[in-house]
Amino acid sequence: MMGKILCIGLGPGDPDLMSLRAHRHLTRARVVAYFRKGGRPGQARRIAEGLIPAGAVELAMEYPVTTEIAVQDPAYGAALRAFYDDWAARLQEAALTDDVVVLCEGDPFFFGSFMHLHARLPRDLVEVVPGIPGMAGCWTATGQPITWGDDILTVLPATLPEAELARRIADTDALVVMKIGRNLGRLRAALTAARRLDQAWLVEYGTMPGQRVRRLADVEGPVPYFSIVLIHGQGRRP
Amino acid sequence: MMGKILCIGLGPGDPDLMSLRAHRHLTRARVVAYFRKGGRPGQARRIAEGLIPAGAVELAMEYPVTTEIAVQDPAYGAALRAFYDDWAARLQEAALTDDVVVLCEGDPFFFGSFMHLHARLPRDLVEVVPGIPGMAGCWTATGQPITWGDDILTVLPATLPEAELARRIADTDALVVMKIGRNLGRLRAALTAARRLDQAWLVEYGTMPGQRVRRLADVEGPVPYFSIVLIHGQGRRP
Repeated sequence: MMGKILCIGLGPGDPDLMSLRAHRHLTRARVVAYFRKGGRPGQARRIAEGLIPAGAVELAMEYPVTTEIAVQDPAYGAALRAFYDDWAARLQEAALTDDVVVLCEGDPFFFGSFMHLHARLPRDLVEVVPGIPGMAGCWTATGQPITWGDDILTVLPATLPEAELARRIADTDALVVMKIGRNLGRLRAALTAARRLDQAWLVEYGTMPGQRVRRLADVEGPVPYFSIVLIHGQGRRP
Repeated sequence: MMGKILCIGLGPGDPDLMSLRAHRHLTRARVVAYFRKGGRPGQARRIAEGLIPAGAVELAMEYPVTTEIAVQDPAYGAALRAFYDDWAARLQEAALTDDVVVLCEGDPFFFGSFMHLHARLPRDLVEVVPGIPGMAGCWTATGQPITWGDDILTVLPATLPEAELARRIADTDALVVMKIGRNLGRLRAALTAARRLDQAWLVEYGTMPGQRVRRLADVEGPVPYFSIVLIHGQGRRP
C-alpha cells in the first residue's frame, strides 16, 4: 500500500483556526513531520500539541542553519540543498507504507519551507491543504479590515533594502510586512521615509497566547520573528 | 441575555476548508445572515449548505444594486449606505436576544462586504473569525507555491486603469488579481504590456465543484466573477 505526503496548513497559530480537513488529517496521522530550529520545539509542532495521536511517529526536520550563516553565503544554500534533498528522500520512503502528514504554519504555499520539499517530490505523491495565512490572523487581531473597495495590497519581506522598502510602502494602499525580527530598524526607517510610520501596526504572535497589538511608533526594543507589520487600506466605504 | 454578532470566514469555497471555530459557530447557529444578489442563492449560503441547523432563522441581506449602476454614480453609494445602515440596525436588534452568525466567503477583513456592517456596529458586539482567503485556495489549486524566499506579492483589483495595472504587474514578483469578471480584457492588455501574459494563470471557482485552472493565454470568452488571475513568484529556492 502506497501512502501520500499530506502537507497541512495549520493556520496562524490558534489551533481552533485550522481547517476541518487539516484537523482530520492531523488527528488520524500515524506519521507526522515538521520543521524546526535545532533544540527548539518548533512553531508548527506547538500548534499541533495535543492533537497528534498517541503512538504516531514524529519526524523533526531540523534546519542545519537558520541565522548563523548569511543567506548570501554559498555555504548557506549548499547546507539547505542537502537538507531538503535528504528529507525529500526520507519522506518519500516513509510514504511507501503510510501517509505522512507534514505540518506547516499558516498556508504551505505562502512563504513556507515545505515548498522546497514539494519541488523535490513527485507531484502526484503530494496533497497540499491550504491554511489561513499568518497575516490574516494578524489583521483580524487589529480589529480592522485590511482592504476595502479597490485597495491595492502589497506584501513585502522586511529583508529588502531600505530604499526599496520605502518606495513600495509609499506606493500602496494596504501593506503587510513579513520577516520582521532583526530587520525592524531598517523597516522603521523606510516607513518614516515614506511618511507612513504613524499608520503602521505591529502584531506579535497573532492569534497565539502571547498576542500583542501595538502602533509601531510606540514600540521599542527587539520584536520576535513571528511579528507582522501592517497598514490598513482606506478604500471606498459607502 | 445579550448576543454577539459572529462573522465567520467560510474560506475559499470547499466547506471542508472552513476553520474548526467557524464550523462550530455555524452548526450551532440559531440566527444566520448572509449577503446575496437579489434572486440568487448567494455564494456564502451555498458554502454553508447542509450545515445550518434545522429551524435556524435565515436573514438574506440582498444588495440593492450590484452592477446595474456604476460605482462612481452617487446613487450607487447612497443605495449601499442605506442598505448597510438598515442591516446594521437589524442585526444589532437581533443580537439583543441571541447570537447572530454572519457568513462571509473567504476572509471577512479582506475585501468582504461585512466590513461595512462592522464599521457601523459597536466594536464589542462583534467577533470576527478569519478564513482562508479565496486567493490561497486558488494558488493551491495551481499546484505551485505563490511566493518563495524574498518575493514581493502584489494584490490588485482588476478595476484599476490599464496603465496602472501594467506598471504594477511589471514591478512585482508574485501577483494576484481579484475582481476579474468584466475587467478581463483590460487586465489581459495590461499583462501583455508588462510582457507577463505567458506567466499568468486563471483559476475559476477555486476549491469549488466547477474548479478550472488554465493558462490565461489559452482562455477565450467571458469568465465568472469568482475568478482569480495569478503569477507565481520565482524567488530563492535552495
